[in-house]
Amino acid sequence: MILKQKHLLGLEGYPSEDIQTIIDTAFSFRKVLDRPIKKVPSLQGKTIANLFFEPSTRTRISFELAQKRMSADTITFSASSSSLTKGESFKDTVKNIEAMKIDAIVMRHPHSGAPSHLTQFVDAVVVNAGDGKHEHPTQAILDMMSLQEQFQKLKGLKVGIIGDISHSRVALSNIHGLITMGAKVMVCGPSTLIPVHIENLGVKVSHDFDEVIDWADAVNILRIQLERMGAGLYPSVREYRELFGLTVDRIERHRKSLVIMHPGPMNRGTEIDSAVADSERAIILGQVLNGVASRMAILFLLLGGQLEEN
Amino acid sequence: MILKQKHLLGLEGYPSEDIQTIIDTAFSFRKVLDRPIKKVPSLQGKTIANLFFEPSTRTRISFELAQKRMSADTITFSASSSSLTKGESFKDTVKNIEAMKIDAIVMRHPHSGAPSHLTQFVDAVVVNAGDGKHEHPTQAILDMMSLQEQFQKLKGLKVGIIGDISHSRVALSNIHGLITMGAKVMVCGPSTLIPVHIENLGVKVSHDFDEVIDWADAVNILRIQLERMGAGLYPSVREYRELFGLTVDRIERHRKSLVIMHPGPMNRGTEIDSAVADSERAIILGQVLNGVASRMAILFLLLGGQLEEN
Amino acid sequence: MILKQKHLLGLEGYPSEDIQTIIDTAFSFRKVLDRPIKKVPSLQGKTIANLFFEPSTRTRISFELAQKRMSADTITFSASSSSLTKGESFKDTVKNIEAMKIDAIVMRHPHSGAPSHLTQFVDAVVVNAGDGKHEHPTQAILDMMSLQEQFQKLKGLKVGIIGDISHSRVALSNIHGLITMGAKVMVCGPSTLIPVHIENLGVKVSHDFDEVIDWADAVNILRIQLERMGAGLYPSVREYRELFGLTVDRIERHRKSLVIMHPGPMNRGTEIDSAVADSERAIILGQVLNGVASRMAILFLLLGGQLEEN
Repeated sequence: MILKQKHLLGLEGYPSEDIQTIIDTAFSFRKVLDRPIKKVPSLQGKTIANLFFEPSTRTRISFELAQKRMSADTITFSASSSSLTKGESFKDTVKNIEAMKIDAIVMRHPHSGAPSHLTQFVDAVVVNAGDGKHEHPTQAILDMMSLQEQFQKLKGLKVGIIGDISHSRVALSNIHGLITMGAKVMVCGPSTLIPVHIENLGVKVSHDFDEVIDWADAVNILRIQLERMGAGLYPSVREYRELFGLTVDRIERHRKSLVIMHPGPMNRGTEIDSAVADSERAIILGQVLNGVASRMAILFLLLGGQLEEN
Repeated sequence: MILKQKHLLGLEGYPSEDIQTIIDTAFSFRKVLDRPIKKVPSLQGKTIANLFFEPSTRTRISFELAQKRMSADTITFSASSSSLTKGESFKDTVKNIEAMKIDAIVMRHPHSGAPSHLTQFVDAVVVNAGDGKHEHPTQAILDMMSLQEQFQKLKGLKVGIIGDISHSRVALSNIHGLITMGAKVMVCGPSTLIPVHIENLGVKVSHDFDEVIDWADAVNILRIQLERMGAGLYPSVREYRELFGLTVDRIERHRKSLVIMHPGPMNRGTEIDSAVADSERAIILGQVLNGVASRMAILFLLLGGQLEEN
Repeated sequence: MILKQKHLLGLEGYPSEDIQTIIDTAFSFRKVLDRPIKKVPSLQGKTIANLFFEPSTRTRISFELAQKRMSADTITFSASSSSLTKGESFKDTVKNIEAMKIDAIVMRHPHSGAPSHLTQFVDAVVVNAGDGKHEHPTQAILDMMSLQEQFQKLKGLKVGIIGDISHSRVALSNIHGLITMGAKVMVCGPSTLIPVHIENLGVKVSHDFDEVIDWADAVNILRIQLERMGAGLYPSVREYRELFGLTVDRIERHRKSLVIMHPGPMNRGTEIDSAVADSERAIILGQVLNGVASRMAILFLLLGGQLEEN
């Protein structure tokens, strides 16, 4: 086994050398994606089940493309079409699918910890594709890969993460991964959306977005969950945009270069202005491409692929 | 043609030598499934359409995996997304799909006899994946394969089938298949759920589950359709469990070994206790794996595959 | 590049030599479909995204089979499962999918012009699989291929198109294609359903179906949108059938041979009688098969395939 852990459940406590191995491998798969023939036989004869118990388009398609381009056989299962509606338990559903000789399970689930729970009763490799408010490790890997692509290193890099830190699995996985890789992280958002004691994870907290921009090499702008506005946790959209939106005005007040990331889908005009999202500084579509390469690398390494085969 | 019949519509009147050929072939595909590279080129360039006019997860996935692992091209069509909503007839829908040069159609349909009806106007091979209360022949094949795996023979084997015999296509296909193969069958359930004259099929009837356990080498526990409870056909869940549930208590009252099967999905605590379902005696997950192997064998043999190619 | 245009958005202004190249290539793919092994490696390593923002079964399956039989990797995305529900814009959704290195996008969309709009911000090849009331060029290509199969030529051929010309993208694409290829076209239907000035496209108009039958070599019977009846645009179903339905009675009044086409799905008994649809004169299922071959040809040529590879 090339990686120390059998599964990829989260980046909390995940070894830095394994994160680096994944990123390095992802760059070699990026080269495959830049070829006219974007296909390798790396996972031929392996079967991967994508179990999405929460709706997803972009993450699911990204994983499916990663799998197909490595010649794996795949099945995709979404909760709405599932036996769960027949009253079967989560465990029985998954055990049944695994019994068909599945090598890896990619799972998205609305409950934090569901992928970890899964590892207690399946033998297959488990990859967390997002679990509740817990972690979204493959997103953080692709974010770090994108940062390394821009800066050729992660160590010492200054990264701002802006938005609803409390409810974001993207933020949490990025914090764990970046701190492990020696980057510096500052989180920023309304005080109602920053967990207390988050400094214990090794990050700085700011409530002043301009301060973050002055400090950071790159900022990762989180998607605002507009549906949470009603709960009193958010100021109005207009006030949010004024304080925490990456507006043209805000960017222009600062002269330094700044790399801009967003995990998508974007609320243009709320957390990020259209002109900013479409500017040269934004690497948002590059993140999407790196997502496919990262997922190829993760599945390839976890399924015991030999790098020479490639 | 290796098998005598072009289609697999049901096991009533199906030749015993063909059932045996399918089971033997399924065991050779089981070996493929136990390899690291679970893929063979057996059906490369063949196209199979999975037409599911009734929701299904496990049977559909089992067929899809069987097809992909033999390198077939597949399309899956479920009624909800179908042209049927545009007022097109069943016949026109299917003829149109077949016109795209489909080699085999795997069909699940809520109406008994629909797959047989289909054979009257398509040239493609038809495999019944469950039709109404009629038959579910691939389930019975995988059940018999699982029994042969346990006992090395079917002839003379004593099999109990417990539950709602009246509404179960699994029960009916198992009865036809097992009797054809020389096994002995005893059905057991509430008298409201046992068809009159079922003895004419060559089975014994019991209303005493303990008597069945004393007699049987293996029992196949059917899923209780809780939604039928309201119709007065079932006693209460509690009473059902007491009389016909495979409880820990009931198993422990008998000392003999007993192989336990269930087609899934299980209602744990109703027709089967959790501790029983998870015990060494239960081969429920083995049935799932044999399901993939059986469906590989069926499609392979019906599509004229040569065993040497394998 | 073999074809002059990068995309296939519509047949209005599309070069006749390119239509002919596509049809000729489609005939060579038809031979592949008549083989036992219906698969070629022509698009191996290419990725095609099928984006269906409007429900479709037959067109989607036809494209998917075309893609799989050329060994392409495919992803299919339907609006109901999309990020659009998260408030993301059409442009962002499509840009994100394209960022995963998609070679071609096949798009169906309820709005006329959506595929053309798409070409303004993606680099991928775009194939229009039907946009609003605008065009459905792949349907017209398969219709012309089917006519050439019957008559060995398109030039001078007399084709009637019957039904709701105003709302039919099938009619419009057929008109553009057939006129370009030197065929003669007569459209026929209730005056409420014939656009004014349609003669400017080079077609004749008739309100007398019998006159069309007397004149035509072939008729293309459009599907009646029964849901439009209420809007006062249609006469009653009975009156429609009497005036514009291809009834047994109407066919028998004329002695000449007549090739009968229908894009499906059919309303049997409304725009076409069952006995007519199932007669030897009807080539409706042949159109379906030619649809797969045409889509193989289109994708193959647009993705720069070399004919020698085949």
